[in-house]
Amino acid sequence: MQQDFTIDSRSLPERVADKIEELIISQTFPMGEKIPNETELSATLNVGRSTVREAIKILVAKNVLEIRRGAGTYVRRDAGMVSDPLGFRFASNPNKLALDLCEIRTIVEPQLAAMAALHATSQDIEQLQSLCDEVAALISRKVNYGQKDIEFHTKIANCTGNLVVPKLVPIINTGIDTYVGITNFSLAGRATLEHQKIVDAIRRHSPEEAQAAMAEHLKSNRATLIGLG
Amino acid sequence: MQQDFTIDSRSLPERVADKIEELIISQTFPMGEKIPNETELSATLNVGRSTVREAIKILVAKNVLEIRRGAGTYVRRDAGMVSDPLGFRFASNPNKLALDLCEIRTIVEPQLAAMAALHATSQDIEQLQSLCDEVAALISRKVNYGQKDIEFHTKIANCTGNLVVPKLVPIINTGIDTYVGITNFSLAGRATLEHQKIVDAIRRHSPEEAQAAMAEHLKSNRATLIGLG
Repeated sequence: MQQDFTIDSRSLPERVADKIEELIISQTFPMGEKIPNETELSATLNVGRSTVREAIKILVAKNVLEIRRGAGTYVRRDAGMVSDPLGFRFASNPNKLALDLCEIRTIVEPQLAAMAALHATSQDIEQLQSLCDEVAALISRKVNYGQKDIEFHTKIANCTGNLVVPKLVPIINTGIDTYVGITNFSLAGRATLEHQKIVDAIRRHSPEEAQAAMAEHLKSNRATLIGLG
Repeated sequence: MQQDFTIDSRSLPERVADKIEELIISQTFPMGEKIPNETELSATLNVGRSTVREAIKILVAKNVLEIRRGAGTYVRRDAGMVSDPLGFRFASNPNKLALDLCEIRTIVEPQLAAMAALHATSQDIEQLQSLCDEVAALISRKVNYGQKDIEFHTKIANCTGNLVVPKLVPIINTGIDTYVGITNFSLAGRATLEHQKIVDAIRRHSPEEAQAAMAEHLKSNRATLIGLG
């Protein structure tokens, strides 16, 4: 009953927003490209301009469209990806959240490192080494390296060839970085060595060593996190 | 430059929406509860009612608030959880997406089954058995069992004690169900036996057996998926 009511109560702009999403999915409106203006959409979809305007607002809030001032409305390249999709910002216990996210990293990332060792191209390995060096440089200058560290781990996810894990890894890792911020420079020197060990194993295309090196790295990350808790 | 422009261009309703989110995070407006009405919010936040109305629309689109007709505006219990947070609906190659999601399941779920075997309470095990029986009943009646199957796997994630994995498992599994729909009744009988084996291992609190049983189950799922591809 409640369910039916909810379905019936969907407003016209919400239904128009769904229609526009369908046009994006069918690639009538391709990712990264400009969509027709309000007047054209209003004519095509046979609804008023104010309804189109409301529908566009909904899709902007959902990170599907973006309005570029003076240029028009575009389909985002990362359409539908939201910045905190699991609602971590509403977690009632941020310390428990951080430990749980760490636990997920421990399950997932060693396996991703192994897959990366199997699939990484020489270009991938070069990029991974650059990111590793950039993180090391930030650590030695005692500058916050959280964001670059996430890029390093996301690049490993990227090397696996799996299209979804590069989306998951930053969500999980950003959660930890945002809600705890393991920026402990006295222990960070260790991270530099551990990162290099992972890159070396991937370069040697050794899945076992890459997996072990990542597991070791995450174990010391977790120890740092618990030390802070 | 582009970045700065984007930040500056945030509209007043967007900033008011952020402010309301902060009030939810600080539990001034608790999850699941009604928030003050437009007039009250307008006075509290010192902005016009139409701005409040726009801000609420943004938060409804982001699944933070819900409007219950005739009752008022409520903070959702699952505030910020969106239905397709990784934008799977925009994937250009659904078959590759389904295989990649399967790969993630293979990495994650056997470990979750092991953790469930360590942490499941007798009440958890009872609930797991019920879900297992319900899936089996749907399969024997040749009714679509996708949703119930996801509930079964999510319940296992739930038994781990980790608060994030019960959010991740349905996202990944719904992705597969939506874009491929492995509803192959001739092979589904096997799923019933495999599910029971997982439940039995969890009941015996044997992490190794639970992990192996889940790995076996996902391997045959994957075989079915490839058979359909």
